[in-house]
Amino acid sequence: MTPKNVNTPGGAQRAIPGQYGDVKLYAGRLYRDLGTEISQYIHSPLCSHEVKTFSNENIFVKLGASVRGQDVYLVQGMASPVSDSIMELLITIDTLKRDSAGRITVVIPYFAYGRSDKKDQPRVPITARLLADMIQVAGADRYITIDLHAGQIQGFFSIPGDVLGAIHMICNYFNAKHLDNCVVVSTDLGFAKKARDFAAKMNMNLAFVEKRRKGNTGATEAITVIGEVDGMNVIIVDDEVDTGGTIANAVHAVKAAGARDVYMAFTHALLSGPALERLEALPVTEIVCTNTLPIPPQARERLPNLTVLSIAPLLGEVIVRAHEGRSVGELFNE
Amino acid sequence: MTPKNVNTPGGAQRAIPGQYGDVKLYAGRLYRDLGTEISQYIHSPLCSHEVKTFSNENIFVKLGASVRGQDVYLVQGMASPVSDSIMELLITIDTLKRDSAGRITVVIPYFAYGRSDKKDQPRVPITARLLADMIQVAGADRYITIDLHAGQIQGFFSIPGDVLGAIHMICNYFNAKHLDNCVVVSTDLGFAKKARDFAAKMNMNLAFVEKRRKGNTGATEAITVIGEVDGMNVIIVDDEVDTGGTIANAVHAVKAAGARDVYMAFTHALLSGPALERLEALPVTEIVCTNTLPIPPQARERLPNLTVLSIAPLLGEVIVRAHEGRSVGELFNE
Amino acid sequence: MTPKNVNTPGGAQRAIPGQYGDVKLYAGRLYRDLGTEISQYIHSPLCSHEVKTFSNENIFVKLGASVRGQDVYLVQGMASPVSDSIMELLITIDTLKRDSAGRITVVIPYFAYGRSDKKDQPRVPITARLLADMIQVAGADRYITIDLHAGQIQGFFSIPGDVLGAIHMICNYFNAKHLDNCVVVSTDLGFAKKARDFAAKMNMNLAFVEKRRKGNTGATEAITVIGEVDGMNVIIVDDEVDTGGTIANAVHAVKAAGARDVYMAFTHALLSGPALERLEALPVTEIVCTNTLPIPPQARERLPNLTVLSIAPLLGEVIVRAHEGRSVGELFNE
Amino acid sequence: MTPKNVNTPGGAQRAIPGQYGDVKLYAGRLYRDLGTEISQYIHSPLCSHEVKTFSNENIFVKLGASVRGQDVYLVQGMASPVSDSIMELLITIDTLKRDSAGRITVVIPYFAYGRSDKKDQPRVPITARLLADMIQVAGADRYITIDLHAGQIQGFFSIPGDVLGAIHMICNYFNAKHLDNCVVVSTDLGFAKKARDFAAKMNMNLAFVEKRRKGNTGATEAITVIGEVDGMNVIIVDDEVDTGGTIANAVHAVKAAGARDVYMAFTHALLSGPALERLEALPVTEIVCTNTLPIPPQARERLPNLTVLSIAPLLGEVIVRAHEGRSVGELFNE
Amino acid sequence: MTPKNVNTPGGAQRAIPGQYGDVKLYAGRLYRDLGTEISQYIHSPLCSHEVKTFSNENIFVKLGASVRGQDVYLVQGMASPVSDSIMELLITIDTLKRDSAGRITVVIPYFAYGRSDKKDQPRVPITARLLADMIQVAGADRYITIDLHAGQIQGFFSIPGDVLGAIHMICNYFNAKHLDNCVVVSTDLGFAKKARDFAAKMNMNLAFVEKRRKGNTGATEAITVIGEVDGMNVIIVDDEVDTGGTIANAVHAVKAAGARDVYMAFTHALLSGPALERLEALPVTEIVCTNTLPIPPQARERLPNLTVLSIAPLLGEVIVRAHEGRSVGELFNE
Amino acid sequence: MTPKNVNTPGGAQRAIPGQYGDVKLYAGRLYRDLGTEISQYIHSPLCSHEVKTFSNENIFVKLGASVRGQDVYLVQGMASPVSDSIMELLITIDTLKRDSAGRITVVIPYFAYGRSDKKDQPRVPITARLLADMIQVAGADRYITIDLHAGQIQGFFSIPGDVLGAIHMICNYFNAKHLDNCVVVSTDLGFAKKARDFAAKMNMNLAFVEKRRKGNTGATEAITVIGEVDGMNVIIVDDEVDTGGTIANAVHAVKAAGARDVYMAFTHALLSGPALERLEALPVTEIVCTNTLPIPPQARERLPNLTVLSIAPLLGEVIVRAHEGRSVGELFNE
Repeated sequence: MTPKNVNTPGGAQRAIPGQYGDVKLYAGRLYRDLGTEISQYIHSPLCSHEVKTFSNENIFVKLGASVRGQDVYLVQGMASPVSDSIMELLITIDTLKRDSAGRITVVIPYFAYGRSDKKDQPRVPITARLLADMIQVAGADRYITIDLHAGQIQGFFSIPGDVLGAIHMICNYFNAKHLDNCVVVSTDLGFAKKARDFAAKMNMNLAFVEKRRKGNTGATEAITVIGEVDGMNVIIVDDEVDTGGTIANAVHAVKAAGARDVYMAFTHALLSGPALERLEALPVTEIVCTNTLPIPPQARERLPNLTVLSIAPLLGEVIVRAHEGRSVGELFNE
Repeated sequence: MTPKNVNTPGGAQRAIPGQYGDVKLYAGRLYRDLGTEISQYIHSPLCSHEVKTFSNENIFVKLGASVRGQDVYLVQGMASPVSDSIMELLITIDTLKRDSAGRITVVIPYFAYGRSDKKDQPRVPITARLLADMIQVAGADRYITIDLHAGQIQGFFSIPGDVLGAIHMICNYFNAKHLDNCVVVSTDLGFAKKARDFAAKMNMNLAFVEKRRKGNTGATEAITVIGEVDGMNVIIVDDEVDTGGTIANAVHAVKAAGARDVYMAFTHALLSGPALERLEALPVTEIVCTNTLPIPPQARERLPNLTVLSIAPLLGEVIVRAHEGRSVGELFNE
Repeated sequence: MTPKNVNTPGGAQRAIPGQYGDVKLYAGRLYRDLGTEISQYIHSPLCSHEVKTFSNENIFVKLGASVRGQDVYLVQGMASPVSDSIMELLITIDTLKRDSAGRITVVIPYFAYGRSDKKDQPRVPITARLLADMIQVAGADRYITIDLHAGQIQGFFSIPGDVLGAIHMICNYFNAKHLDNCVVVSTDLGFAKKARDFAAKMNMNLAFVEKRRKGNTGATEAITVIGEVDGMNVIIVDDEVDTGGTIANAVHAVKAAGARDVYMAFTHALLSGPALERLEALPVTEIVCTNTLPIPPQARERLPNLTVLSIAPLLGEVIVRAHEGRSVGELFNE
Repeated sequence: MTPKNVNTPGGAQRAIPGQYGDVKLYAGRLYRDLGTEISQYIHSPLCSHEVKTFSNENIFVKLGASVRGQDVYLVQGMASPVSDSIMELLITIDTLKRDSAGRITVVIPYFAYGRSDKKDQPRVPITARLLADMIQVAGADRYITIDLHAGQIQGFFSIPGDVLGAIHMICNYFNAKHLDNCVVVSTDLGFAKKARDFAAKMNMNLAFVEKRRKGNTGATEAITVIGEVDGMNVIIVDDEVDTGGTIANAVHAVKAAGARDVYMAFTHALLSGPALERLEALPVTEIVCTNTLPIPPQARERLPNLTVLSIAPLLGEVIVRAHEGRSVGELFNE
Repeated sequence: MTPKNVNTPGGAQRAIPGQYGDVKLYAGRLYRDLGTEISQYIHSPLCSHEVKTFSNENIFVKLGASVRGQDVYLVQGMASPVSDSIMELLITIDTLKRDSAGRITVVIPYFAYGRSDKKDQPRVPITARLLADMIQVAGADRYITIDLHAGQIQGFFSIPGDVLGAIHMICNYFNAKHLDNCVVVSTDLGFAKKARDFAAKMNMNLAFVEKRRKGNTGATEAITVIGEVDGMNVIIVDDEVDTGGTIANAVHAVKAAGARDVYMAFTHALLSGPALERLEALPVTEIVCTNTLPIPPQARERLPNLTVLSIAPLLGEVIVRAHEGRSVGELFNE
Repeated sequence: MTPKNVNTPGGAQRAIPGQYGDVKLYAGRLYRDLGTEISQYIHSPLCSHEVKTFSNENIFVKLGASVRGQDVYLVQGMASPVSDSIMELLITIDTLKRDSAGRITVVIPYFAYGRSDKKDQPRVPITARLLADMIQVAGADRYITIDLHAGQIQGFFSIPGDVLGAIHMICNYFNAKHLDNCVVVSTDLGFAKKARDFAAKMNMNLAFVEKRRKGNTGATEAITVIGEVDGMNVIIVDDEVDTGGTIANAVHAVKAAGARDVYMAFTHALLSGPALERLEALPVTEIVCTNTLPIPPQARERLPNLTVLSIAPLLGEVIVRAHEGRSVGELFNE
């Protein structure tokens, strides 16, 4: 037996263009805009597929061309209407699997049910795990998602995945503003550790908004700010804004505590129920979010201070690297 | 080693009341009425559980009491809104499983996506199989359902189940009318074999409504009746009525062919889109269906000739037999 | 992050010759002839492997060369002796898997137990699902088969597959005959929908053979023809012919109804029990079938009017396309 | 929290008669005799079920009564025709599972393919593992079997099982004969360890029959006896006799070495090919085997020195203990 | 069909003593003491089983008696030596499964690798998920554990489980002390939410120990206390104490901030490396922990201010309720 | 359809360099030396990854670079400390899987728990099967190992693997010595068949060491040699040496029977407990083993007659062939 040189000379890691076939990019009904942006970034056309809902509400999917042996990326987040989006996601995976796709990566910019990630009381479900199981049983080989509510949700999957953060993108955006005398404020204790990462990246101090009991026996609560915000610019951070109640409280609390300009930054713009009304009414300089969820036209109309950063380049870059077998971590100097 | 008598004396099969704990009966949000009826039949109260939809559309379930080690039956069909009903079904199963239920039987009076049961064209899903996988991965041990679109859907499950037919109940109803000179008509060829069973059970002849090309080259279609209906009473049968188009065509065709009184009988009243309008306008003596799907109040108002037969006694009886380890087949003399 | 061009220039989908290694074609003991034909079509030799049955009836398989990392196609249908063919199929899959094949596609020209696809009575198995599970647990990655008894059997598999129809081939054969004044006849109601597709493709009318009760109370049956066949040429179609009883009845019925020349067309020639004797005796111009099952020499001898169309080009073409990651559906203009 | 007494008073382990329902005993077509014997031992009737083979060789099973929630034992060994027996076994398991049996224990007196338990050469299968997977995927919960060719085959199962030995029974039989001056001889090295157990239990010495090369360079083999047999009574032991070649060689070798009376003892009487002819011709006092495989009538006729010990009491006792949740090991003082 | 009364009269939920057989309680080598305490609480003897480590370090388990059909509880935490404890846990599960236990519940008072619950950096494992998979693949049906590092770890399991908190027990202990003027302090932000629950239950205020950067550009850190502790009694809470570094910092910080008496409370006493030395040196009035991990004798000797609360009654009560099919949540008024 | 040429011209099997990405070779903490040797053989660098054990004994793994889409080989045997080595193996597999490795092959030079491969007594585990399940559930796609204790352990895996033998290498080593008048001796009956293979390959005769009862009633044992060794050179063979007791007995037995020079040959040098002391004291010319387990420096010091053959070329060659999709069997002329 004589020694063998198993790899190509030169030592650099090769791109493996044909390993999983060509990239085939699909986007669900509510993600056509984001899909188109990604498509432009990766220079690969958005593939056509028919998705329709029959009169009996059954969702039907038909691919426009074969994906046999190809490296498929399906962009479909769990946007409103949530149950329909989940069903469309699963049915499309099944379609791709049964058409003999080479590899199926689901790109889920927003993963719903993130708060149903543990039994914090008896006799409740862990729906986030259920979703992970359903995505796997439908036939996905990998997943890509952004800012999970809890990092542990990765562990709900057996298949590998890339959980990306919008934090780099949002920090870059704020850094370019050269705000000085600025502090990062976390809306609640559950987000405290991620807020600390954000503050560290921005080289700023951290404060919290916290609910406290008033007095030793009283049951009423006061929302207080822990840490200094008086006379400072404030960036209130959170992972998502749903009805806007929590973040509105935070804005009022930091204003009451003497904050100067207030900015909001969050990844997922759910904006359900009274959210637009609430955000409209807040004394906030700028609201910064991303397009992990489709931003409804009325949000852009009613919120002139809204800035939507696109996650398309980030997702596009990760898709390219996943396809070519290159590191995603090094994108973030990790 | 001396011979042993392993079973109880007498030889009759014993009921095994404690084998899977007590019966615990649950009903989903849209199936409270049916659940209550079943509960009355089996003399076991409907268990309380909270099901709510948050502002972010996430569905939340919490059981009112522990089901630890109990024999749970969850009545939840795939009624409109279909995707939400499916999600509620799956999330409730997960809740029951994680509360250590002894055995979970899902009672799905209407199983959606029955027409997505095969790839009859390339690049489409088999969603009915996907649903079966999802129900299993969520944690169901058994299922009970009624009049699947195709019997093969049973084979999509690995877990055992009871697929019941409403045919006995509907036949009994018509037999009690003592209609004479009566023929059974199938709305299309796909339902032909089940219609034949129906006709056999009613001791009647069978006819079909069929689309035929006109002439050897022409592309236009004519709806014709194959078999004799002239001067006869007609029972048009199908498994479900969705928008009502097919069955309306059938009514017109048999009327044109000389039918006397026309009856309709079907199991699943989807009644979506223009269904009520169409049914209202038809020259039909009586429309007979079941409550496998909740019947909306306006259906009862607008269709005075509508008779809804309740499947509660059938489901209740099967639940009792499943719990006690007795035959379901013998219910139907099988 | 700068945009990337992930795929090869030009835009056409590339063949991916090395993605799954080389094609390695194997054929089971009863499928050596068909395997050889396919081998010639795809210009890839039939691989050698030893299959023997020991005195204790244990089946033993040994590959002649390694399939490590290769794209293996195993041609093995469930031909008589059926149980042995199934065991040989499964054992060969296990052999290929444990030799680290890159991908294993089983090519099953005839899939047995198609009629055991649902519980149409209590306390019976669904053996077709069992077979699908066994093929998967043995290690197959994909399957290719022809004219399943029910399309839903596809849904019994979790792995993707190509279910092909011999219908195109048979229609082409009859079209080349330029028969005029011709009608397609379905042997029974269960085959009605497929017969309609056949008739549509041939641009012919459709008729049925149906069993009817005589009179309102009598129990005797009459076989009647629904639709016009008088004075016409008839092509009786079915998916398979087993003992030949059903199709013999159909021939007699159409002859009694005035049919001129009668042709038979079916995919799977089981020809068990009294089949040859019955077919010999029938007044049929031509019997057209395929070689999804090995045609015994005595069938060719005793039936001079037998035409066997070879499915080798169809299977070969699908293997090539599966290997190269190209659409199979477009073969049929789908 | 106050301490609780969770179990019944007295401390003895309770029988749990209803835990898995009643015992329901089934026997496959070739195992009706053994099933009847077991049925008599356990005082529980053999359940009726229809097993038939259609003209297309498809095996069909229908239970005569429901097994819903019952504790089912299915006696079906892998007897000749082996492939059919395996298929019947698997199809019957599927039938029982889909009829909602409470627990399914397969009783496989003879497990075939025991020699295909490892890859002792490249590119061969491990069929015994495949069989274990198939039995599990079909739906068995437990298995009972006798004298596996290699104990490791237990590890091929994930489900629990009882692997019994006929050795106690055979030793008891020989002990009752009070043979003196007796030695146990193993037919080959592979059975050496089990033969040693046998000899230890009989309180006898052990010898081997071994093939040796003649001289240092020659390729011819001589069958020699290692250990003393001259002037002694000999019991030649093995796990199974297939064509009888190995054991015939052993008889000749011990006779040549001066053995007095020769007895044979083995569990599984395959007796295939020339076995009867060979055994007839041997100078053997008594051939002792069991009924793990059906003994064909001609074997009993042609071999007047054949003694068949019944394993029915052993299997019956284990079934009783499995049903009542009692130790099987203590049956053998283990 | 006449209505049936499926359950026992009276309506109260029955205990189901025989459903899963008798309770059989086992304890691993390091958990014999805890097992004995639990055994006394539930009035069921600790079952004997041999566990030994051979010279080749292979761990061997042999049960002293059969667990066939019984309801087994195995107490085995992941105590030091951790890898050996995990292997012993898994091997014992396999032993119980293969002896046909009716149901296997693993009682894991301390679940290791809780901090490896997500990929918070690229290219690292999620070992807590891996452990959950291993416990399941070995054959456990349920699990019981205490104070998981993150609640989401429940979602790593597919099997149901009871995750208990020692919080009630610890609060009860402190409540009995009637400490006044007392504040709860969380050792770091990651434990903030659980500390809030603790404070709420104790009706006390909450403060944090937090690391902050000094100045806007400097890299050095200061440990500061957020919230008021000056002149107050302090209970520092955490889930576990490993080397004791974090909690020592917290003690010094609250002392520096003017705290009066300092108490420590935590569930899991890992006490590795320099822990004992550090704890000995701290100005702490009382150290309260539990016996989820075996407390080494030297800990009790060197720490006279150590109070170990036993979790045996809690685990015993949960085992009783699990066995009898009663609610565990109601233990905690949930 | 026209015939297609699916493979490359020329007919020779192609290497498929990019099919699974590049080779990425990793070695566990105790296998760095062997990994480096293999790395040199295959001309591919050993990849860096951090493996550390925290103070709480949790093992942590972090890869130095991405393995996305690559063909990974992880060299990690189950060396002492065994439980830690197993945990490191499993955790590293999880790390590789979650970093989206293209294919993961674990190279386990020594597989522990080989003697726990069957239930040879009641109520014991089958730990070797448990290990196989754990390796699979962690995410390995293939395995490579050497001289399993029982070949059947291959069947414990569902994934394919290469089980290599060191026998060729050891035979080559002895052949080069040109020993004459030499006999192979097996240390016990369990190794008899492998010893016969060894003897056949060396063209030598075979003898056994066997324990026999003394006399017919006595319980004392005598170790005897079956076969001729008087005046001959002896090679005592076994698969592993643990404490050295068995092999020491064998040496004394053959010496007592008149053996001249005695050699020992075995694959796995466990050398636990008193092994070194025992081997030191034996009258043995040469002890030949391999480096499937790390050889401790004191072994080399205390045993000057120890020869360690490296398995690195063998493993390297198999890795190259596995990567390139070429036969491994032909390495051994199989």
